[in-house]
Amino acid sequence: MAEKFKAMDEDQLSLDLIEAQFALRQSRDQKNAKSLLILVNGIDLAGKGEAVKQLREWVDPRYLKVKADKALVLEREQPYWLPYVPFMPKEGQITILFGNWYTDLLSTAMHVSNPIDDSLYDDYIAKMAQYEQDLRNNNVDVIKVWFDLSWETLQQRIDEMEPSEARWHKLQSSDWRNQNKYKTLQRLRSRFTQDWLVIDGADKNRDQIFAQHILSALKDCPEHIKTSAKKWKNNPIPQALCAPEKSVLDKAEYKDKLKTLTREVADALRFDPRDVIVCFEGMDAAGKGGAIKRIVQKLDPREYQIHSIAAPEPYELRRPYLWRFWRRLQTEGDISIFDRSWYGRVLVERIEGFAHPAEWQRAYAEINRFEQDLIENNSVIVKIWLAISKDEQEARFKAREETPHKRFKITEEDWRNRERWDDYLQAAADMFAHTSTQPAPWHIIATDDKNTARIEVLETILKQLKAT
Amino acid sequence: MAEKFKAMDEDQLSLDLIEAQFALRQSRDQKNAKSLLILVNGIDLAGKGEAVKQLREWVDPRYLKVKADKALVLEREQPYWLPYVPFMPKEGQITILFGNWYTDLLSTAMHVSNPIDDSLYDDYIAKMAQYEQDLRNNNVDVIKVWFDLSWETLQQRIDEMEPSEARWHKLQSSDWRNQNKYKTLQRLRSRFTQDWLVIDGADKNRDQIFAQHILSALKDCPEHIKTSAKKWKNNPIPQALCAPEKSVLDKAEYKDKLKTLTREVADALRFDPRDVIVCFEGMDAAGKGGAIKRIVQKLDPREYQIHSIAAPEPYELRRPYLWRFWRRLQTEGDISIFDRSWYGRVLVERIEGFAHPAEWQRAYAEINRFEQDLIENNSVIVKIWLAISKDEQEARFKAREETPHKRFKITEEDWRNRERWDDYLQAAADMFAHTSTQPAPWHIIATDDKNTARIEVLETILKQLKAT
Repeated sequence: MAEKFKAMDEDQLSLDLIEAQFALRQSRDQKNAKSLLILVNGIDLAGKGEAVKQLREWVDPRYLKVKADKALVLEREQPYWLPYVPFMPKEGQITILFGNWYTDLLSTAMHVSNPIDDSLYDDYIAKMAQYEQDLRNNNVDVIKVWFDLSWETLQQRIDEMEPSEARWHKLQSSDWRNQNKYKTLQRLRSRFTQDWLVIDGADKNRDQIFAQHILSALKDCPEHIKTSAKKWKNNPIPQALCAPEKSVLDKAEYKDKLKTLTREVADALRFDPRDVIVCFEGMDAAGKGGAIKRIVQKLDPREYQIHSIAAPEPYELRRPYLWRFWRRLQTEGDISIFDRSWYGRVLVERIEGFAHPAEWQRAYAEINRFEQDLIENNSVIVKIWLAISKDEQEARFKAREETPHKRFKITEEDWRNRERWDDYLQAAADMFAHTSTQPAPWHIIATDDKNTARIEVLETILKQLKAT
Repeated sequence: MAEKFKAMDEDQLSLDLIEAQFALRQSRDQKNAKSLLILVNGIDLAGKGEAVKQLREWVDPRYLKVKADKALVLEREQPYWLPYVPFMPKEGQITILFGNWYTDLLSTAMHVSNPIDDSLYDDYIAKMAQYEQDLRNNNVDVIKVWFDLSWETLQQRIDEMEPSEARWHKLQSSDWRNQNKYKTLQRLRSRFTQDWLVIDGADKNRDQIFAQHILSALKDCPEHIKTSAKKWKNNPIPQALCAPEKSVLDKAEYKDKLKTLTREVADALRFDPRDVIVCFEGMDAAGKGGAIKRIVQKLDPREYQIHSIAAPEPYELRRPYLWRFWRRLQTEGDISIFDRSWYGRVLVERIEGFAHPAEWQRAYAEINRFEQDLIENNSVIVKIWLAISKDEQEARFKAREETPHKRFKITEEDWRNRERWDDYLQAAADMFAHTSTQPAPWHIIATDDKNTARIEVLETILKQLKAT
């Protein structure tokens, strides 16, 4: 980079940046829409702050957000990316994160009394790279810049610092006189900065190198890939989906079982030390609402949260499709029940063409990683597909239309979806094939008898909580 | 209430609730749109949870959110309403808050080692009532329900509690065997529950009383008032706005002053123990951007946040107009600079007719209360109006159009706004008259010389930080 670098005329650079920003904003909702997430890390006093300040003077500052926070310690209570979810830029925006997952990783590796070991450290690095790739695939361009500084220059800069600045910096860190720490930091960061832009903080072109890098990232706005590289292969549809059970549970037996199971499920959910996520998908009128009602029957409404997932809002559509679920997991409590979920990406969005083939085909792996992150960070996920026969659906639709307080549960859209019955079966089959993982398998409950379905849902939850 | 109460047929009640919910949702963006915020408080074991659970079974649970959190201690670091901002329902939605500002007030009054005194307690109650009135005026209907229970019944219920439930409840509170605490709680809550629905937790109709109350609140959807009760009187336009200073600051003097002042402002902002909010309004091209650049010149980008306020998004329009500013204050740091602000309500929204007369005329007092809350909770607010002459604006617009990297700063809209010049002067005059408060006065900086304006902005900030 350094040998090829040519400083630009400052006015020209500023103009180019502003024009590129404008083009980025104009791209919103277009085929080449994207956002820019800039991760800025480095040695203290290498000039991160100055470079960003200079950038801010060259660009239109209204469309450049800067976020900085104290470093967090990585812990097993939440995925490392969760604290940064609110700052994810939407299409057309640029966000600079000073405090980011690499800050947290370094701080965790260096400062806690019980630092993480090398293999866990490398594990985090691999995960972060993958997470960033997922962001890029979802139109968040991730730019990583490390501002470096030699030990000698660092010492010299500390000596020369202005008192007021020194006071502010002191709040941030205090180990710059310790050469061992400096060396450890350099050793640790070198394990992830291979694909970063590394800028020497003593380089007189520092701010221009940084700004030109951002400029070229801004200019690079290719159209989103809509077709998938590999030929798609449909998976066989599980027999259960085509022919749900017909047998009807005896009413007295149902009541008995229900009484015991609702109590057992309430206790299991309540006292599970993990965050429990129960996730329902299935055909319309398959009984998701009724099943959820039984799950929470013996719980207090303060103990759980039901997330009814409808179509995304415009501001959600301008971010990665998983973002709105990240948001929900961030603020909510211990028991989260999803009435439809992130699997919408590979179901309705696939079938209705809201997601391109490349997008929904990529989503399986993205979802698996998302769930894996949750599971590794103290969550358990129970995934249930409720299946009924096509005839049973019709009967339930009609009953809904005739029952006053159920009339609102049936719309034109339900009848339209019904016309895509076979497409939904195929999408479900592919979803099972690609996202039934060992720690979070799909449970198919296929019966035309509501009561049987409810009992099986409760049993499934108990089983899954014990299994993992 | 109790003597008049008649239990309804459950199916009918459920149907009515579902229909009213549906109507509420359909009202979105209409003349009678509103949301429902239900504050649920009371004695433990009085059946709050059961009543909400029953309500959830009667209504369409997808459109009823329930939020519960541990009680917070009220402190001088943030306004009591700030933690609840994320849970403010949008038009068409119903949210039940178990944990809310009254929970926090009671818990603060009862539990901390240094409880707040009676006068502060009453002060909080008055503020809360006013805040709720502001919410109602902004189409968030606030319903308050207290679930009560006699001492004897409470003791009896503790004796009879199921073990699993007992374990869960234990996490929440532990003082139910202490009659003194019970009496204190009753004494304290009686000071704010006069206008609440108080339901006896031992009443067999408990859940119906609660649900019917919600039903009648849902049905009560009058059209928003668009005209104001009082005749509006324009305020005289300050002379400075009509004739900004023309004299030009000597360049060398400017540079000298700038150097000293940027350093002084950086220090003053950096080391002020309060959260500093600087808020810019003024005519287009009056130099807000340039002034902001000088404020932050000697600061690190990690030390401040610039909020550029544009038109609200659809999801923001469905909430009280101050909501999007509450949100911004919630997550950001110590130094917040607003390039346009909540005063848009009484400026552009008034002039363009986005807010009805009743709305913008009410907004002055709402804004004053909002700022007062911030100031009482460790913030200082510096409000600056930048004025230029109409000729100067034209010159700057044209210069922008001719300067490549400023071309994006000028749009058709700017020229359109210019046609409303006099309306903006009038709106500004009224804003000064109604919102220049002692702790947060407006500072008018009226000059056609950019450099003079910048110096005066810096001096104003220093002065205001010292004054309060």
